[in-house]
Amino acid sequence: MAITGPKSIQVCLSPALLPYYHLDDTVAVVIDIFRATSSMCYGLANGAKAIIPVAEVEECLAYRKHGYLLAAERNGEVVKGFDFGNSPFSYTRDRVEGKTIVLTTTNGTRAIRHCAGATAVAIGSFLNIGALSNWLNKQNRHILLVCAGWKNHVNLEDTVFAGGVISRISHDDIEMDDSAQVALAMFRQAQGDLAGFLSRASHAKRMQHLHIEQDIAFCLQTDTIAVVPVLQNDALVCLNEDQYVSLP
Amino acid sequence: MAITGPKSIQVCLSPALLPYYHLDDTVAVVIDIFRATSSMCYGLANGAKAIIPVAEVEECLAYRKHGYLLAAERNGEVVKGFDFGNSPFSYTRDRVEGKTIVLTTTNGTRAIRHCAGATAVAIGSFLNIGALSNWLNKQNRHILLVCAGWKNHVNLEDTVFAGGVISRISHDDIEMDDSAQVALAMFRQAQGDLAGFLSRASHAKRMQHLHIEQDIAFCLQTDTIAVVPVLQNDALVCLNEDQYVSLP
Repeated sequence: MAITGPKSIQVCLSPALLPYYHLDDTVAVVIDIFRATSSMCYGLANGAKAIIPVAEVEECLAYRKHGYLLAAERNGEVVKGFDFGNSPFSYTRDRVEGKTIVLTTTNGTRAIRHCAGATAVAIGSFLNIGALSNWLNKQNRHILLVCAGWKNHVNLEDTVFAGGVISRISHDDIEMDDSAQVALAMFRQAQGDLAGFLSRASHAKRMQHLHIEQDIAFCLQTDTIAVVPVLQNDALVCLNEDQYVSLP
Repeated sequence: MAITGPKSIQVCLSPALLPYYHLDDTVAVVIDIFRATSSMCYGLANGAKAIIPVAEVEECLAYRKHGYLLAAERNGEVVKGFDFGNSPFSYTRDRVEGKTIVLTTTNGTRAIRHCAGATAVAIGSFLNIGALSNWLNKQNRHILLVCAGWKNHVNLEDTVFAGGVISRISHDDIEMDDSAQVALAMFRQAQGDLAGFLSRASHAKRMQHLHIEQDIAFCLQTDTIAVVPVLQNDALVCLNEDQYVSLP
């Protein structure tokens, strides 16, 4: 197959808008910067065998019998009775290496499930933005960047990240939708001072009472890991090296 | 009633996101720059008695017996058998003065109907941005700027306009959601060269074959009219002067 780079880039700014996008011949990238997709990338980079994203807390509980680690977050907090939620500090090597994790979060895991019809579903965060963008650059598909947002509302951090990916996809005359233009413009405004720019965002208020300033700072680190998590048989795993160049 | 200005500003970037916003105690402003809300403002400024926005072509046809002017647009074109569509040049004084117009458009009129639960529904365009913003500044309500978009996709021109309104609402510590931050940032990037900035937008491709460059230029004129159209009993009319200061 000839590799000529992405055919187009679109940004879906809220999961509620997904029904209006085609997923055929498309690589979908799910983005939930604070904190689901950042933690997923970190956990897989730390040797987790797989992360199974599920939409509902009850689905998550159903996996207990398999001996998996169970993780559930709602409204920013760990759901009572679960091993952990979506703080990246729970996904360290000593806790996750060799383990399978079943995770449900307020926004991110639902967005992943809604993308299941795409040719491929990958996971993005600032931690792996370089690896992800390099890989996307080699896909001769449409690219759809899906912002998980917050309860179907658009959020600043996922939008800015989508723009960051677009800024790294170096295909001069690539077709972009208006949301992609918006995301790229937002990233260009933000990139000089990402943390400062995002401190104006709703997450700052939303997460204030949770005392997760450290999580926020962690999730804004750029290019600290090189994995590209993709969905395979309902579980997120790291791409094999032989898949790294382009999708089959 | 004490008048202290708007309580908050939110931007709904697509009609598909409206179910996630509260409309209580809220002034909703519907925005469909190319071209529905621009033409509505222009028509009412030119003496149209009322404009009745309807969602479907069939609803529009049902009004024929009343002797109203019927206007219908789909996919940017006048629907066959109708008096006119949504080009502003159809809404000149000689055609609309004293008349009631029934209008259905691809995006704008549907968005208006979906906002019907708000405390008030107003109509925005660059043509009346000054009058609209002055009036909004006097409302002690929540403000929700509703971008009609294009078939539920976010578009650049409606987003930029929402940012323009926000830039004129001079309430320093007003609460804004992330979409409002996005819109304001986009307006600030666009304002130096609105037409140039928007030429990158999808409308440029979408409308190319329609040869409506004149319509586009018309709709980007700023502060040419002073009306504030509002929804009253399912019809858009100009605010009376005694209502101009604040809502009852």
